[in-house]
Amino acid sequence: MLFFESDYTEGAHPAVLAHLNETNLVTVKSYGADIYSASAADKIRAACEAPQADVVFLTGGTQTNLTVISAMLRPYEGVIAAETGHINAHEAGAIEYTGHKVLSLPEHEGKLDAAEVAAYCRGFYADETREHMVFPGMVYISHPTEYGTLYSEAELAALSAVCHEFGMSLFMDGARLGYGLMSEQSDLSLPRIAALCDVFYIGGTKVGTLCGEAVVFPRGNKPLHFLTTVKQHGALLAKGRVVGVQFDALFTDGLYFRIGRHAIEMANALKALFLRKGYELFIDSPTNQQFVVLPNEVLARLKKDVAFSVWQPLDEQRTVARFVTSWATDPAAVAQLAELL
Amino acid sequence: MLFFESDYTEGAHPAVLAHLNETNLVTVKSYGADIYSASAADKIRAACEAPQADVVFLTGGTQTNLTVISAMLRPYEGVIAAETGHINAHEAGAIEYTGHKVLSLPEHEGKLDAAEVAAYCRGFYADETREHMVFPGMVYISHPTEYGTLYSEAELAALSAVCHEFGMSLFMDGARLGYGLMSEQSDLSLPRIAALCDVFYIGGTKVGTLCGEAVVFPRGNKPLHFLTTVKQHGALLAKGRVVGVQFDALFTDGLYFRIGRHAIEMANALKALFLRKGYELFIDSPTNQQFVVLPNEVLARLKKDVAFSVWQPLDEQRTVARFVTSWATDPAAVAQLAELL
Amino acid sequence: MLFFESDYTEGAHPAVLAHLNETNLVTVKSYGADIYSASAADKIRAACEAPQADVVFLTGGTQTNLTVISAMLRPYEGVIAAETGHINAHEAGAIEYTGHKVLSLPEHEGKLDAAEVAAYCRGFYADETREHMVFPGMVYISHPTEYGTLYSEAELAALSAVCHEFGMSLFMDGARLGYGLMSEQSDLSLPRIAALCDVFYIGGTKVGTLCGEAVVFPRGNKPLHFLTTVKQHGALLAKGRVVGVQFDALFTDGLYFRIGRHAIEMANALKALFLRKGYELFIDSPTNQQFVVLPNEVLARLKKDVAFSVWQPLDEQRTVARFVTSWATDPAAVAQLAELL
Amino acid sequence: MLFFESDYTEGAHPAVLAHLNETNLVTVKSYGADIYSASAADKIRAACEAPQADVVFLTGGTQTNLTVISAMLRPYEGVIAAETGHINAHEAGAIEYTGHKVLSLPEHEGKLDAAEVAAYCRGFYADETREHMVFPGMVYISHPTEYGTLYSEAELAALSAVCHEFGMSLFMDGARLGYGLMSEQSDLSLPRIAALCDVFYIGGTKVGTLCGEAVVFPRGNKPLHFLTTVKQHGALLAKGRVVGVQFDALFTDGLYFRIGRHAIEMANALKALFLRKGYELFIDSPTNQQFVVLPNEVLARLKKDVAFSVWQPLDEQRTVARFVTSWATDPAAVAQLAELL
Repeated sequence: MLFFESDYTEGAHPAVLAHLNETNLVTVKSYGADIYSASAADKIRAACEAPQADVVFLTGGTQTNLTVISAMLRPYEGVIAAETGHINAHEAGAIEYTGHKVLSLPEHEGKLDAAEVAAYCRGFYADETREHMVFPGMVYISHPTEYGTLYSEAELAALSAVCHEFGMSLFMDGARLGYGLMSEQSDLSLPRIAALCDVFYIGGTKVGTLCGEAVVFPRGNKPLHFLTTVKQHGALLAKGRVVGVQFDALFTDGLYFRIGRHAIEMANALKALFLRKGYELFIDSPTNQQFVVLPNEVLARLKKDVAFSVWQPLDEQRTVARFVTSWATDPAAVAQLAELL
Repeated sequence: MLFFESDYTEGAHPAVLAHLNETNLVTVKSYGADIYSASAADKIRAACEAPQADVVFLTGGTQTNLTVISAMLRPYEGVIAAETGHINAHEAGAIEYTGHKVLSLPEHEGKLDAAEVAAYCRGFYADETREHMVFPGMVYISHPTEYGTLYSEAELAALSAVCHEFGMSLFMDGARLGYGLMSEQSDLSLPRIAALCDVFYIGGTKVGTLCGEAVVFPRGNKPLHFLTTVKQHGALLAKGRVVGVQFDALFTDGLYFRIGRHAIEMANALKALFLRKGYELFIDSPTNQQFVVLPNEVLARLKKDVAFSVWQPLDEQRTVARFVTSWATDPAAVAQLAELL
Repeated sequence: MLFFESDYTEGAHPAVLAHLNETNLVTVKSYGADIYSASAADKIRAACEAPQADVVFLTGGTQTNLTVISAMLRPYEGVIAAETGHINAHEAGAIEYTGHKVLSLPEHEGKLDAAEVAAYCRGFYADETREHMVFPGMVYISHPTEYGTLYSEAELAALSAVCHEFGMSLFMDGARLGYGLMSEQSDLSLPRIAALCDVFYIGGTKVGTLCGEAVVFPRGNKPLHFLTTVKQHGALLAKGRVVGVQFDALFTDGLYFRIGRHAIEMANALKALFLRKGYELFIDSPTNQQFVVLPNEVLARLKKDVAFSVWQPLDEQRTVARFVTSWATDPAAVAQLAELL
Repeated sequence: MLFFESDYTEGAHPAVLAHLNETNLVTVKSYGADIYSASAADKIRAACEAPQADVVFLTGGTQTNLTVISAMLRPYEGVIAAETGHINAHEAGAIEYTGHKVLSLPEHEGKLDAAEVAAYCRGFYADETREHMVFPGMVYISHPTEYGTLYSEAELAALSAVCHEFGMSLFMDGARLGYGLMSEQSDLSLPRIAALCDVFYIGGTKVGTLCGEAVVFPRGNKPLHFLTTVKQHGALLAKGRVVGVQFDALFTDGLYFRIGRHAIEMANALKALFLRKGYELFIDSPTNQQFVVLPNEVLARLKKDVAFSVWQPLDEQRTVARFVTSWATDPAAVAQLAELL
């Protein structure tokens, strides 16, 4: 079987696991006050060129989204997201469970358009009945998006400007950030992201760890008593080291970026393969998720030997399939897929 | 330094970590549908002699408490707990955040008294204004309690009977269950707990894993669409294997019970040591947490070489200190402590 | 000044106020257990031909929506509504505050389309990732809608069938129900609504009372301990009589329907007037809200003597204005408006 | 039948109802922006000698408590209340539904003790695990309390000082404030309350209106976008005039105080009567609720002709009964009760 189903079907990158092994018997403080979490936070601050940053380690993506968003919004505020944004579509109403509305706007290959966000906000503040409506308090974006696409620096800067014009914070869900950063198409770096966002997270689960996401408040703007809020959401690990150790490994010797680079190379190879074989791309994704249009009989045949996601039917004869690469993708698998096609 | 601060200051038991290592590169399904989680669930069902049981793996204790409690209560119901119950005292209002009141009753060395719970419920249903009050819908107990004490089988059976008389479910927080099961004082087994409780969890974090708790609904009584509820609380790991693999190791060759036994032996040694040296116990705990009364000057002297918790001042001259053992406690450390005392 | 701004700018219909006056000094039970609430409930059951119905009196529309919806949904469920539905657009996130997502679908002159709801549900249950999504648990419609439009009996029956096919309840927000029932275009009656909906409310605030809405659970299907839920939402009046007395008057001698009829006659006169004067209707509303396209200079001129709502700009030169009638609309005001135009 | 069951069993004071009648047909702005609400707010500001005060009209007590408390607390904060405080005991978990814990402290005839509150806060801030606990963010008191007792000015000043020492706000639930202000035992006035509290409400429902409570933020310290929060809680009346008109009447010619005075005189007469007849007081209440110890046979006999509340059994032979007076209490009823005793 060849595996392209998702980037979370294996355990941890071997170097990450090695660090868990070598630190396992060291006695440390609990609840995130351990030396490994401190070291990882330092390395992340350095990588972001944000010496004032607060770095908080949480366990998973939905948990991070709901904890950060509910901590930063006031009770009368909601969060703007693309219709396809993960918080709007695939988190089981986690944001609404915290009492906040997701204000969904149209998506463009998974992205929000800064001009449309601005128009929405202008319309809101021009509306005489706005006090009966949910105030826009934050903009949520995923980068890469759910379609693997990327914001350019100009696009992110435009969103950031709109946010600040309308008193909103800008939050980037970086569940797959490593793959975004290493895409050839990316003109964004961690320092630029730290400069333009009010809060973002560097995803671990999908980029080489067993679990864990690193939330960065780049200007030391962590909400007051955030640890208590984290605890209240059941998001505080007694053994906080578990995530700290893993991020300590990820940000040692550029591992995070090497993982991203490998997956991008594998994705590029996949894309080239599909194009060479005459298949059409559904979306021209520059990152580790590739969306390909497959005739239904090809899809059925491949399914026997290859694990991938059936994304959506396109028409009677064709279906969109998603192939995903990761640190664990073997170049041999891409070669074998070439033979199968 | 000698370490008796808590049972979550090291990583995982070596056998648990070994299983993470040996399964790391196997590609499996995500979100808990993996073979290791399935295997662990089977082993837990067997250990509980509850073949119908639903077993769900979550990440931490507070997360487990809030997810289970909010999923099982109806909106107008609250949960009864001892005043010192973890959900009432040390979870940052996590239960209230889900919209439910914790109805606190007096504690007796950390335990609820079944007769008092019954009296409370009788009073509630006799009160003509009860429709303006929070209905008692569940009883929460921790076993061992926050003071290390244990319910006897008779006490648990009494609580269970009261719960069922008044239409409440009985939930046992087993964050340290392994230590309770292996205490000489315990007359409870997993099968008896499964027979008497409506839901309980087998703690991993404090009994040998990096993270993870196994929730057991012993009669297949998992709430409808519980996976969606877990997701909504941000409690669903993409790599669900992380917890499944660890519990698979814990329930292989009786590891869970051996871990518990070791910690109990170490705790018994500590207790004997303190008594031999003439110190008084604050509570005569039969499990891995020992509460000792120390003169303040002894406490200050010990602090230099020994890590332990300052529980509470007792009077001007004396303080209650907590010493905790775990799978990681070295018999040599107990011997060294004897010399220091 | 001529008043067409809304149907809640005066106090109560004189007959409603008279009943408050004549019952004022009678000592009755509190919290809705009074004789007037009982009498009003009886009359509503009779009008609905629903002898099993539970009738509960609440104070306002948003309060009713949030109380009913949160009491009937399970934690993992959301409520389907038209994009323009009041709960989605103009209730300040009240539904989300209770932890539930509003699943918005396209609107057609303010209405949901049963086929689109069915397609949404079919898509949902066909989606392999649905357990990560919000389950559709209820359909919310307003009747008349926010645009004054009405569901036909066939349309309501179709929605009802879809709801029951997919295990959802159907909830009708009848804030302006009286105006809908008395429209010439309506082929729906209270008994038909009671037969097709799982819960609905008969609006008082906008149809002649000072405040108050009557929630009807037509098949005695009031959620368990609903009084406690009402209390929990701060929606239980100590002097429950306040709403009971008013609905007792509304449902005596057909007052509710006479109020509706008068407003419809006034709205018809307005519509005829606008068409006669050559103005275009934005939506051809059959109820007491009329949406007219006005050239901006006409709008500016009228504003001096007439109170009405500026709904939305249509283009550079024209604006949509809303004119609303009620029990309080004086035929003389319509005549005077004719002169002004 | 003689009526002493509660202070909310009749409609409105005749002068309040008269004002509803005389203003009924005036067309005004909705949602609380009407001239009567403005006038009432002005009169309340004058009565409180608080020209900067924000005054907001809500409908009922529980609604007011949950709206104010949830708007003023941060997510990680809870509210301190006496164990017998209304929000802790008789509001169906309304505060918890908004996500906040009620931190209950011992009561002394229904009152909180400032020294105990201070000790609690000192203990909290000295506790090294406090970040795992709910932060005390507000103190809630009822005045008069649920037992009819009153805080002295010195007691209120002490509570106010403790609140400000520990960064908490002080909230007074004045559901029966009018009766407290007119008690001979009271040394508090509206201006003193406005000076010492951060927010309080002047109860209408139990002091002469059909419904309605006036929330006062004495230093213009209304939370940002409070109207939206009110709407979100379903607490915004379309016809906001309903409450505004009633408070406009209450604060005209000292009606609020005359109502209070009358009820106090009736309560004093009741108390004198019971003492004269040799009955014991359960609590020596200085306000309109009188708690009397009745032999069970007397209670049973009285029940035939007198409506009052059975508060709680005292012992096998005796029961505590509550007799309540209001603006509607007829002196003749007290005289008749004297004959019955």
